[in-house]
This record gives sequence, C-alpha cells and structure tokens, in this order.
Amino acid sequence: MKIGRFLNGGKVVEGRIEDGEVVTKSDERLKIKDLKYLSPVNPSKIICVGLNYVDHAKELDMELPHEPILFLKAPSAVIGHEDIVRYPRTTQKLDHEAELAIVIGKKCKEVKAEDAYDVIEGYTCFNDLTARDLQKLNMQWTRAKSFDTFAPIGPHIVTKDEIDPSNLNIKMLVNGEIRQDSNTKNLIFDVPSLIEFISEIMTLNPEDIISTGTPPGIGPVKKGDEMEVKIEGIGTLRNRVS
Amino acid sequence: MKIGRFLNGGKVVEGRIEDGEVVTKSDERLKIKDLKYLSPVNPSKIICVGLNYVDHAKELDMELPHEPILFLKAPSAVIGHEDIVRYPRTTQKLDHEAELAIVIGKKCKEVKAEDAYDVIEGYTCFNDLTARDLQKLNMQWTRAKSFDTFAPIGPHIVTKDEIDPSNLNIKMLVNGEIRQDSNTKNLIFDVPSLIEFISEIMTLNPEDIISTGTPPGIGPVKKGDEMEVKIEGIGTLRNRVS
Repeated sequence: MKIGRFLNGGKVVEGRIEDGEVVTKSDERLKIKDLKYLSPVNPSKIICVGLNYVDHAKELDMELPHEPILFLKAPSAVIGHEDIVRYPRTTQKLDHEAELAIVIGKKCKEVKAEDAYDVIEGYTCFNDLTARDLQKLNMQWTRAKSFDTFAPIGPHIVTKDEIDPSNLNIKMLVNGEIRQDSNTKNLIFDVPSLIEFISEIMTLNPEDIISTGTPPGIGPVKKGDEMEVKIEGIGTLRNRVS
Repeated sequence: MKIGRFLNGGKVVEGRIEDGEVVTKSDERLKIKDLKYLSPVNPSKIICVGLNYVDHAKELDMELPHEPILFLKAPSAVIGHEDIVRYPRTTQKLDHEAELAIVIGKKCKEVKAEDAYDVIEGYTCFNDLTARDLQKLNMQWTRAKSFDTFAPIGPHIVTKDEIDPSNLNIKMLVNGEIRQDSNTKNLIFDVPSLIEFISEIMTLNPEDIISTGTPPGIGPVKKGDEMEVKIEGIGTLRNRVS
C-alpha cells in the first residue's frame, strides 16, 4: 500500500494512493493532480547514516566503518515532493544525496535486529541535501545538513509488506541525467542492523525517519536544477533548486 | 516570572510558579511538593553549541572558534528536574556539562542579533550529558549526546525580562561538590549572536532549545551521583545517575 499526505485547499488530507487518487479514511476519493504533496511524515527526529554504501566508501578510498556514523537533521528542514529546495546564500557547493529512508511505525527502544520489521511502517525516498563546503569547514555536520528545505521526503510511504529493502535499485537524476546509480544490497549496515544500533541509543517514535546513507556519485546542483530520487518499488521524489 | 510544567496524578499542568505553588491559567493553585516536575518545554529541536566558553577553550589549549560549532540532541533524550539519568551500558565515561539554555518563544527565521530578544521566551538550566568515550570514537557527536535521558531541562523557565543572560554565574555540583564554576560573560558567542547565526540556517519554533555551551571543569559521573546545574537567577536542575 502507498500512503500519502496532501494539501487540499488549506486542509491536510491523508490516505492510501490508488490509480492517481487518494482514498481517505472516510472513503473520500480525491484526484492527486488537484492536490499539493506534503511530506508523508512529520518526524520528531531524522536520523541519518553517513558512509553506508560499500561502493561509496571504495570511491572515497576510505575504510569501511565498524559502526554506523550517525547524525541528525533538523525536522524544520522537511519538505515534500515537488517543493522547492532553497540554495542558502552561505554556501558555494550544494550537493544532492539520494537515500532510502525507513519510516518508523511504533514507539520502541532496544529493538533486536530480528524484530526490526515489527517497528517499521514502510519506506520512502529521501534527499540528504548537504552544503559540502560548510560540512568540510565545520567539525560537526549539523549546520551543513540542517538548512530549511534540506530534507525532502516522499512522494509517499510504501508499506513494508510490499518491498524488500535489501535489494532495491536507487538512483539520483539531475535534469534527467543519472548521477547516482546503485542498489541497497550495497549497504554496509542493513535495515535491521540500523534499527538495532539506533534504538539501543534512543527511543524511536512513529513517523521518525532513519535515512540509510547515500551511494556513490554525490555532486553539486545549481539554482534551477531538477533533482529526482528514484527508488525501485517506491517511486520518484522530485524537487527543484531555487 | 517562572513558568513550569508538572504532572499532577496523570495530568499535565502548566503555570507560573509563586511561593512553592503553581498557578494555572484557570487560576488553580497547586503545591509543587505534591507534583512531579516535567521538562518545562517539549522542544522540536535542541540545538547545542560546542566549545563556547573562553575559559574552557583555554583549558583545552584550543584556538577560539571563528563560528559557533553546532550539533543537535534528539528530543527523545529530554527529561525534567529530578528525573533519573540512565547510564548506558555502551559507555565507560559519562560526563556532565552545565549549560545556560535559551527557550525560543516564537516561530522565526533570519533574526538579526539586535532583534534576538523578540524571539526569546526565557532561560532555563541544561545538562548536556555526553558519553565522552563514544564522542572521541565516533566522528559525529550525535550518538554520544543523544541517549535517552541525556537532556535534563529545568526546573522551570525564567522569562527574559527577569535576567540578563550575559552575566550569570553558572555552576555544576556533583554530590554537593563544585565541579564547574564560571559566568556567562565568558561566552565566546553571546545569546544574540547565537540566535542570529542559528536562525540564518533553520526556522526556530516555540519551545525550541538553544544550549549555549559548557564552561571548564567537565568530568565524569558514576551511578548514584547527584548532579546539580545552578544558574544565578534561574535555579537548580537536579538529576541523579542510575
């Protein structure tokens, strides 16, 4: 099942997506082309993983990490499908990062890897936008990654029963040209291991996002560029830079 | 004015604090000794500043930073006055860090330093608990600082009209013994500069916390220890380690 959140006039509507329509809980059917996409979640936290693709680590000629490298993005950075990414005036190098994001379905703590799927609602596309020059300048990545509009999520959630997160093609296209092209089978720490590692540290809440890291091919975008994160079995998250 | 949040039986009550009582909006008066303290805020984000005291930088023999070093703590780590801090099994060195925290009063973006006080509600005490060994091990500080219970906030908010944040004594006591003892006049980046720098990056929301960094004297605590953050004009935030 695909689940989305939209703006219908001034009102937020939520429901499952079928044949170009949203079916709300009260069985109202609305045509998606008449609606504005919103982020399918309002996360209380966005937990990201750095350097989590074998092929990306090789590209950078870096050793594989022994433990996931975690960082947080501010929830104030969240936008939805087709929203505009704002290019901050304080950076000279804004990079795209296509990622598979896990959507948490229930409040949980200290979840074992073998129980990880119990706490997952589903998956969505994520673009971990990064001011690369500020990331290199500042010791911590928070500033470089938490500008408003730096966390596009969507277009919708695909529930966990529909896809196997351990084998999905993942791509980033910029103006229709492929820039990143890999598969989630190249993840160093897979979905269950990430849930175990992170929930050992912190309580996860419904709608929280764990973004699993980006494959090789990260690179800059400029104003006017159109970015598309495409993940097999999920769909396309499209955002333009302005 | 002092504003606090409490649990009264199973119900959350909020109000101004006067003579050992909470006065709610509906003018109900409750004795604080009959209530359980909660964090006075539910922040959508906790933005912390690293290495922001002149005397702390000197102690570490480090150059003064040219820009604030920012990191985020997970909101799931928040606890209130007199709540228990849990010692994680994955760390061997849990450190206290007494800090003055700014409480944001209204949604804002790109606030100039001269307008900073317009967006501040008040101030409170913060203890930026840190698993020091994990902070050194992991490149990013997120894991070391975001364990559940690692963000004690309180005991209450003191509104901005009552204190000058640029000249407050700040102390950390462990089992009654002074471990940190400084004054916010030693801040490298003061309250207005922090608001300007951070709101250039991200939208701030009411109840968001900006914690201004810790003075010299950080050090480890062990199970059973009682920590007290004491800030002039605010009060004492007390938490025991277990």
